[in-house]
Amino acid sequence: MIQTGLLIVLSGPSGAGKGTVCTALRPTMPDLNVSISATTRAPRSGEAEGVNYFFKSREQFQEMVERDELLEWAQVYGNFYGTPRKYVEDFLAAGKDVLLEIDIQGALQVKRQFPNGVFIFLIPPSLEELRSRIIGRGTETEESFRLRFGAAAGELKYMDQYDYVVVNDRVDDACRRIRSIIEAERCSVPRNIDFYRHPFQNELKSETRN
Amino acid sequence: MIQTGLLIVLSGPSGAGKGTVCTALRPTMPDLNVSISATTRAPRSGEAEGVNYFFKSREQFQEMVERDELLEWAQVYGNFYGTPRKYVEDFLAAGKDVLLEIDIQGALQVKRQFPNGVFIFLIPPSLEELRSRIIGRGTETEESFRLRFGAAAGELKYMDQYDYVVVNDRVDDACRRIRSIIEAERCSVPRNIDFYRHPFQNELKSETRN
Repeated sequence: MIQTGLLIVLSGPSGAGKGTVCTALRPTMPDLNVSISATTRAPRSGEAEGVNYFFKSREQFQEMVERDELLEWAQVYGNFYGTPRKYVEDFLAAGKDVLLEIDIQGALQVKRQFPNGVFIFLIPPSLEELRSRIIGRGTETEESFRLRFGAAAGELKYMDQYDYVVVNDRVDDACRRIRSIIEAERCSVPRNIDFYRHPFQNELKSETRN
Repeated sequence: MIQTGLLIVLSGPSGAGKGTVCTALRPTMPDLNVSISATTRAPRSGEAEGVNYFFKSREQFQEMVERDELLEWAQVYGNFYGTPRKYVEDFLAAGKDVLLEIDIQGALQVKRQFPNGVFIFLIPPSLEELRSRIIGRGTETEESFRLRFGAAAGELKYMDQYDYVVVNDRVDDACRRIRSIIEAERCSVPRNIDFYRHPFQNELKSETRN
């Protein structure tokens, strides 16, 4: 129905559960191409090279920046994260949908280059939930907790730059909402009007002339 | 999540299958309140008063118009159709979603009064399909067929006044797309920003101040 690939950007405050939702979403949408970020941060337990991230040294990351190989990049809590450009642009050009799971800084950079992307702001259901998730991750010092918690409050003000807000109350429900958003966007009139108007109108005109 | 009811308008060219899709959609969305139109046309086989339509005489319909009891009304192929206003306004005010299944003239009248409604343009998958559906209905004279077929061609130009275009290739698929559109719209940032920004931001501010 739709002719060009959708760029779907799943973003939101730190601790909203972007990674968990993205991991749960993938097996339910096998046609969705999920971009893998490059990062300078150390792998967490269970994370694998080329699956969760491309793990890079600071020097390697800097080279990617200099060669303009990153669609967006940002420094978050002292580490660098970036989205390799080629993967995204190749799939979109081939009419395939691409999902980016990135932080807010990165999403706003992507929006400047892809204003027609679908920007989804994932939020935790409550502040308590946000706090318990950050603490529950168990990888935070008190200082880094304060940094993240304060950032989450500040980050909420960016919601109005997004198209959709999805509450991550239950991961399955959040995934269902995201699938609905993608399906709805595939039906949006601005994305489809050229496709329908011309061939269909022409067909109708020649029919009704007979 | 959302505070005010959504007004969903399912519309499109004659013969697209609006009635069939609406009938199939209802049991899958029990929370959706489907407005029942008033009409002066004679009941078709299987149609019941107060279920498919409120069947009215021309005099009764005229009285409803004069008392401003109709949200929209139109004359289509010699019969009058209208949407009773009170049903729609009462449900929306109570925060409930309402679906209208109406022709294009009616939809454009509703859009002027409810610009924030969700306007869905249902189209048949092909011209052949449109033709066979109109003929297959078996209630048309050749003259009324020509009228309907010509109108369908002209009606397609209104697609750009709608938010979504849904192809009615298979009724189940069309229903799934409509459910996705409704769920996506419930997540739209403009519909939710006030709800989230204020209580959540205030909560975060007081938390981070402690």
